[in-house]
Amino acid sequence: MQIAKVRGTVVSTHKTRSLTGTKLLLLQFMDAQGQPLPKYEVAGDLVGAGVNEWVLVSRGSAARIDDGMEHRPLDALVVGIIDTVTVENNRLYSKKDAERG
Amino acid sequence: MQIAKVRGTVVSTHKTRSLTGTKLLLLQFMDAQGQPLPKYEVAGDLVGAGVNEWVLVSRGSAARIDDGMEHRPLDALVVGIIDTVTVENNRLYSKKDAERG
Amino acid sequence: MQIAKVRGTVVSTHKTRSLTGTKLLLLQFMDAQGQPLPKYEVAGDLVGAGVNEWVLVSRGSAARIDDGMEHRPLDALVVGIIDTVTVENNRLYSKKDAERG
Amino acid sequence: MQIAKVRGTVVSTHKTRSLTGTKLLLLQFMDAQGQPLPKYEVAGDLVGAGVNEWVLVSRGSAARIDDGMEHRPLDALVVGIIDTVTVENNRLYSKKDAERG
Amino acid sequence: MQIAKVRGTVVSTHKTRSLTGTKLLLLQFMDAQGQPLPKYEVAGDLVGAGVNEWVLVSRGSAARIDDGMEHRPLDALVVGIIDTVTVENNRLYSKKDAERG
Repeated sequence: MQIAKVRGTVVSTHKTRSLTGTKLLLLQFMDAQGQPLPKYEVAGDLVGAGVNEWVLVSRGSAARIDDGMEHRPLDALVVGIIDTVTVENNRLYSKKDAERG
Repeated sequence: MQIAKVRGTVVSTHKTRSLTGTKLLLLQFMDAQGQPLPKYEVAGDLVGAGVNEWVLVSRGSAARIDDGMEHRPLDALVVGIIDTVTVENNRLYSKKDAERG
Repeated sequence: MQIAKVRGTVVSTHKTRSLTGTKLLLLQFMDAQGQPLPKYEVAGDLVGAGVNEWVLVSRGSAARIDDGMEHRPLDALVVGIIDTVTVENNRLYSKKDAERG
Repeated sequence: MQIAKVRGTVVSTHKTRSLTGTKLLLLQFMDAQGQPLPKYEVAGDLVGAGVNEWVLVSRGSAARIDDGMEHRPLDALVVGIIDTVTVENNRLYSKKDAERG
Repeated sequence: MQIAKVRGTVVSTHKTRSLTGTKLLLLQFMDAQGQPLPKYEVAGDLVGAGVNEWVLVSRGSAARIDDGMEHRPLDALVVGIIDTVTVENNRLYSKKDAERG
């Protein structure tokens, strides 16, 4: 999976019927130092992630493994909201700290 | 999924029988600032997208999930026409504005 | 799918039995302006494409969708010979013109 | 598979139920000269790898082949801890030497 | 598939049980001019390829199509040893010539 930050949303009313009811988030990828990369993905959301939260995004057929997603033409899915990223015992990211300030 | 702009069409009369009846669009990828990327994809179209419209393109096995696509050798599919892309409460793209302007 | 030009062939006599009888083409990828990219793929061929023809190549599991390809360890397949590529009403490529000129 | 070094961990309490009980490692990719690449992956772990160990990571649907992983939305999995990498009869990496030195 | 040169081997004793008995080769990718690329893959081997031989490598789910590979978490497999690569009637590579010279 990749680490990404929720940046916004994409709305499409004229789409395949199989996508109905799927919330689509615009995600910006982050590198392993916590810096934004010039790379994004539009992903379905199963966990109710909000703007600026850091999330885990699964790509490829992994996006269609969860119940109810099998028949949606998704190639990317938000599978978790990140609490902490720890690199060699240092805290790279903490959701609590990010929310405080 | 990636955000792409419809640029044109690709026609192939001598192709695998399984591709018969699939309209093939030439898509140019857009970045998350709304600028064109030097990257394209030829994708099947399920939604009747037209030139200059912004669309969502699913790649990989996601392109063969929808009814009728299971047996076509597609690795990319247009799954929706984009109405709006919103980044941190700013409107990056609006189909209505694009059509007016 | 990507647009590619047939450049040559790859021959392998010592291969997995499942590849027996699969013709392997060396393809060079083209960009959306019709220029060659420094990127290639060795792909199976279902349509009898010849050197210098422009073709559509499907990658990933799409290469194993067609009848007879299901059990071959291919990750790329030529699925069509391109007649025309049209970008915003301009003809970027025409097989007829290429053959004449 | 790619060669990667375990750098840390990612914790997500609010995630899809199907990910429950999957330990998530932050991996940094290594090149074939043994140097770190600016590329990472968050992967599930089946082998109990620890920080600084070199591991093999499988990506895509390969991450869901092993027993118990079929229904988890993973696109990357640590499938082995590397003992040695040998390039043309030279030892590029040895776990024993790395632990001593 | 991509063209790669066998550079060495990777040994992992602590791995998923499903990988037992799979020989793992370190492959360096070659470009379409026969020059090495800064890109490698660790792949399973079905054909008994040796160091310095040029091989065809299939990636993704293609690596698990052959008999006996279905339940191994591989995302890359050597599927053939290359005899010749021919580009527009010129011989780019010949295994016989490489072995002589």
